[in-house]
This record gives sequence, C-alpha cells and structure tokens, in this order.
Amino acid sequence: MKISELTTPALVVEATALDANLRTMADALPGGRLRPHVKAHKCTALATRQAALGSRAFTCATVKEMEGMAGAGLGDDLLLANEVVDARRLGALARAGARVTVAVDSDATIDAATRGGVAEVLIDVNVGLPRCGCAPEDAGRLAERARAAGLVVRGVMGYEGHIVGLEDRATRREMIEVSMGLLVRAHEDVGGDIISAGGTGTYDINRWATEIQAGSYALMDTAYAKLGLPFGHALSVLSTVISVSTDWMVADCGLKALGMDHGNPSVEGSEVWFCSDEHLTMAPGAPMRVGDRIRVLPAHIDPTVAYHAAMHIVDGDEVVDRWEVDLRGW
Amino acid sequence: MKISELTTPALVVEATALDANLRTMADALPGGRLRPHVKAHKCTALATRQAALGSRAFTCATVKEMEGMAGAGLGDDLLLANEVVDARRLGALARAGARVTVAVDSDATIDAATRGGVAEVLIDVNVGLPRCGCAPEDAGRLAERARAAGLVVRGVMGYEGHIVGLEDRATRREMIEVSMGLLVRAHEDVGGDIISAGGTGTYDINRWATEIQAGSYALMDTAYAKLGLPFGHALSVLSTVISVSTDWMVADCGLKALGMDHGNPSVEGSEVWFCSDEHLTMAPGAPMRVGDRIRVLPAHIDPTVAYHAAMHIVDGDEVVDRWEVDLRGW
Repeated sequence: MKISELTTPALVVEATALDANLRTMADALPGGRLRPHVKAHKCTALATRQAALGSRAFTCATVKEMEGMAGAGLGDDLLLANEVVDARRLGALARAGARVTVAVDSDATIDAATRGGVAEVLIDVNVGLPRCGCAPEDAGRLAERARAAGLVVRGVMGYEGHIVGLEDRATRREMIEVSMGLLVRAHEDVGGDIISAGGTGTYDINRWATEIQAGSYALMDTAYAKLGLPFGHALSVLSTVISVSTDWMVADCGLKALGMDHGNPSVEGSEVWFCSDEHLTMAPGAPMRVGDRIRVLPAHIDPTVAYHAAMHIVDGDEVVDRWEVDLRGW
Repeated sequence: MKISELTTPALVVEATALDANLRTMADALPGGRLRPHVKAHKCTALATRQAALGSRAFTCATVKEMEGMAGAGLGDDLLLANEVVDARRLGALARAGARVTVAVDSDATIDAATRGGVAEVLIDVNVGLPRCGCAPEDAGRLAERARAAGLVVRGVMGYEGHIVGLEDRATRREMIEVSMGLLVRAHEDVGGDIISAGGTGTYDINRWATEIQAGSYALMDTAYAKLGLPFGHALSVLSTVISVSTDWMVADCGLKALGMDHGNPSVEGSEVWFCSDEHLTMAPGAPMRVGDRIRVLPAHIDPTVAYHAAMHIVDGDEVVDRWEVDLRGW
C-alpha cells in the first residue's frame, strides 16, 4: 500500500526515524537502565521493538496498559508508575504470571495493593512536581507499613515532570540535582534495589536513577524537539488539504486527531492559525491545492496517539505495517 | 450497576439533564428547523433520542459519522458539513439507500462529489470564520458548475463558528447579522431550499437559517455554559481521587480523557491547577480522601467524548445504560 492510499487523518511513523530513536536510547542506557514508558505510544507492537533492543522491564500509566502489555507477552517486569485505589485487576494479572509492581504513596494505596493481591510496590515520592508521591520524609514510614502488610518494597520512584520539559539544559541539570537529592534521601529510608525516575528530557543527566522511565523519545513531538536531544520526529499526522482560500488553507486534521494541551501542532514552512474539531487552518508557505497531503507534527505526542486506533509504519512512499494502538482506554 | 462500580475515568451522562436539553432544543426548533450535529456526541444511541423528538435530518463532520448514522438506521437525510477530496465511501452509502448531501466549496470538491457518486450538495460559503467555504461572490458560479455536472444543489451552508462561542449575546446578535447577510446573498445566487448554519450559541438568534446545525446543547461543556443558554451540564467525567497532599490532590482524569483546546476542566468548589496524561491536580475546596469520587466538567465537549469508548447513562446512583461512542475515527 502507498501512503497516498491512506484515509486521513492518519498517524504515520517513519520506520527509519523510529529505529534510530530506539537504538540511540538503548545504546545510551544499556543493561536495564531503561524502563520504557508505554504511555507515550500505547502500542504493544512498538514495545516489542523496544524489547528486542534489550528492554525487559516497562513502565505503564494505566491498568489497561499493564493488561495489554502482559497479554502481548511483555509482562516480565511491569511497573504501574501511578496510584490505584482498586488493584484487583493488577492482582489478577500477577496471578496469571506477570510480574506486577505498583506505585504507592499513602496508607490507602498500600492497603489497596494488599487487598488487590499485588505483591510488589515502589514508594512514590514527590520530588517537586505537584502531583502524586508522598512527602520525602514520609517514605520510610510507608515502606515499613507496606512491609508489615507483607508487600515487597522494591525501592522508590519519583518523577521530575517539572524539569523534563525545560528547554535550557543547564537549568535542567541544576534542578534535577535538587529533585533527585530528595529521592535519594527517601531511598535511604526505604531501601530496595530500584530508584526509578526520569524521562526523555533528563535521560542523560539523571545519574541518580537506577532506571529511566522515558517514553516520548521513540516518536517525539515539537515540545521535546526544542530540547536539542538526539531524537528525531518519527511520528506525524498525515492530512489532506480540503479547502484553499486566498490567505489560508484548511487540512482535515483537528482537535480529535491531536493532543492540544501543549498548543498548536506544526507544519513545516507554514504558519498554523488554529484547529477546530476536524480542521487545521494555516497560512501555507507555498501555494497548495485541494488534495495535497501534508505532515502535521503534534506538540504533545501522548494525547495525540491516544485519539487514533492505529499507526501506519512507512518507508519512503510505502506503508510497510499497521500497528494497533491497543493500549487505549482504562 | 451503581455509579460507584464504574472504572474511572468514565463519561457519565445524567439522563434527566440530557432529556431536558434535547426537549428544550426540539421545542425551540420544531418542524425540521433543527439538524442536530452528531460530532459533539459521536453516539448513534444519543442520535436515536434526537430522532425520537422529531429530527429526521442530521449533520456530520466525517465520513465515518455518515456511515455510522446510516448503519444505525438514521440515514434519511445526512449532511456532511465538511469538504472531502475522496467521496467514494459517501457514494457507496447513497447507493445503499441513505440520503447523502455533501458540502462543496471548490471545483475540486465538486469534481470529487461527482466522481464519488454523491448526487446532492450544498455550497459551503465562508461567512467570517477562516476555515472552509467559498467566497460569497463565488457561490453562484460553483452552483452552476455543480448543476452542470449533474448534481442537485440543495442550497447553501455557512458556519458562523467565530460567533457561536462569544459570551455577550448582544455581540452575537450584531455579528450574526453581518455573517448571515453574506450567506443570504450567496443563497440568492445559488437557489435551493436550504440555508444551513448555526450552532448551540446562535440557535435562537439565527433567524436566517432554515435549519440549525447545533450539537453541543445535548451534553454541554463549561465554554458554552458561560453563554447563559437554557441547557444544563449533562455530561461529566467521573474520576477517582488517587493521591492527597497538603495543598493539593490528584484525580485519575487527565489529558487522554479531556479535550484541552479550551483550557482546563472544572470541578465544582475546587481550583484545577493542571492536567497531565492521566492526572488532574487541583486544590480542593473541602478536605478529600483517597478513593473519593469527583465529577469533572470538560471545557470542550467534542474532543472530550472522542477519547472515550462509551458513555454511561445514570439516574441518581444507578447506571441505567451504556452507550457506545460508535462514531469515532475516520
């Protein structure tokens, strides 16, 4: 099948760019130092590629992602880097043979893990992002409580989400020192082998974490592209020009095909004005005609992929594969 | 099933609020003056309710929506209020018995309709929103061209999308006069029975359109709620509190459960700080505990619904029905 035969809008992944991104990260973090986060791509076919490059352990954000990964035979060591109040589905996964570890940051989530039949946990520590995670000074107490309840505490996690996207590398370095200082101190109280943290924006400067939870590096987006990382745009949304006016043109790629929290997407050489449900209005850099195809680069990869049922793997003009985005939903 | 048994995040629709919204609009626009837009809810079960209140004609934004509506037996008069370059699937729908009308705004889209086997079109006219639609002075020529190609031109459409969301009613009134003036003039050149326009924000002040393409009124969102319309919030995203810190708490409803182009969602009595992929961080108005459930009101209904596989119809604490969001994708 040719790219020109795809119904638009369609997620398109350049095979060579994806392979290069996966290889670069695998080479940078060998020997289990990479625990790829599947939330960015929600695709077990892509995770299988990551596994082929050496990753046996993965990070998930939802129970559905955990179930899908285990179902695809990628359940050797799955971390749900998120809190859950009902861990029964996770317990069922563990009983079926997957290795399941869940983040806990409170008495309630420890109790939920116990009740649900999950055996292993990480203590989730707040390292500066106002989101989940206990206060660093509470981590030791929670670890004790978890162990008293019969859980294995494998270590700590703490996501420096307030740092990973900062464009200035020196600022990232400075802030991560403080942030990971909190996590390391908590780890001293908690024990265990694992200090899990990091993301695409800090994969090579987070020297405290024993494993990095990076995800966006595989497909990339325009927000991360500003950081000057050695990862290229592998994903775009293929779109068709459907209307041309004097000063602008409209393509069939809108709010239901793009995550918009990081702002408008980009089209090379053109100025994007705004998106509507099924439209992208832009001032093109060169004349365009109805029927022309364009590549739209999303500002934020994760919520973009989550709108699509599949991604199409392309090599030149050929569509060489179709991968289900099979980890969507909850 | 009780609401408390739903896996979160989950779309929840209050049956009584939905019924009231549908009834209010049906009463305001009787006798075919309402052509509900299904893009806001993407749900044939909900469209069936609209049909039961008198709507035989519907508006769609994608070919997939057209196919789904016809497949659900709601194909009496379907308007694709959008341009397409490849109309073959629409032609197949028409041959299978649906009445299919498609918007055209250029020679290329007229040719596409002809090639695809679509028999009926509306001339889409730009009435001020920089998106699709021909220049008003070009509408007559396009109608002639379409008729020369053997197409039936049913009239014109023109969406005043730059007006429907303005909070001040007087401003909406003032601007719609200008906007619809353009459409009416184009209609004089085009002919046909239909002047299709309007949305939830102009449903009762657009006195020029013969039919109103409103959609958001059924479920509503916080953006439209600012307009003081007689439609209440019928939809919310049910979410579970998973983490509580000193100054904030976190619920399991994030960027993949919410359309974000209109900004943050709202939680009554609380201050929403930001959303991440699977998290909503907020300062609650009253103390909350892990496991508590909250209702999150989206800022923009259309791209919110498009993330979910189903909506749950509730009456008090009971889940009385589950409706597939079956018109997603393209």
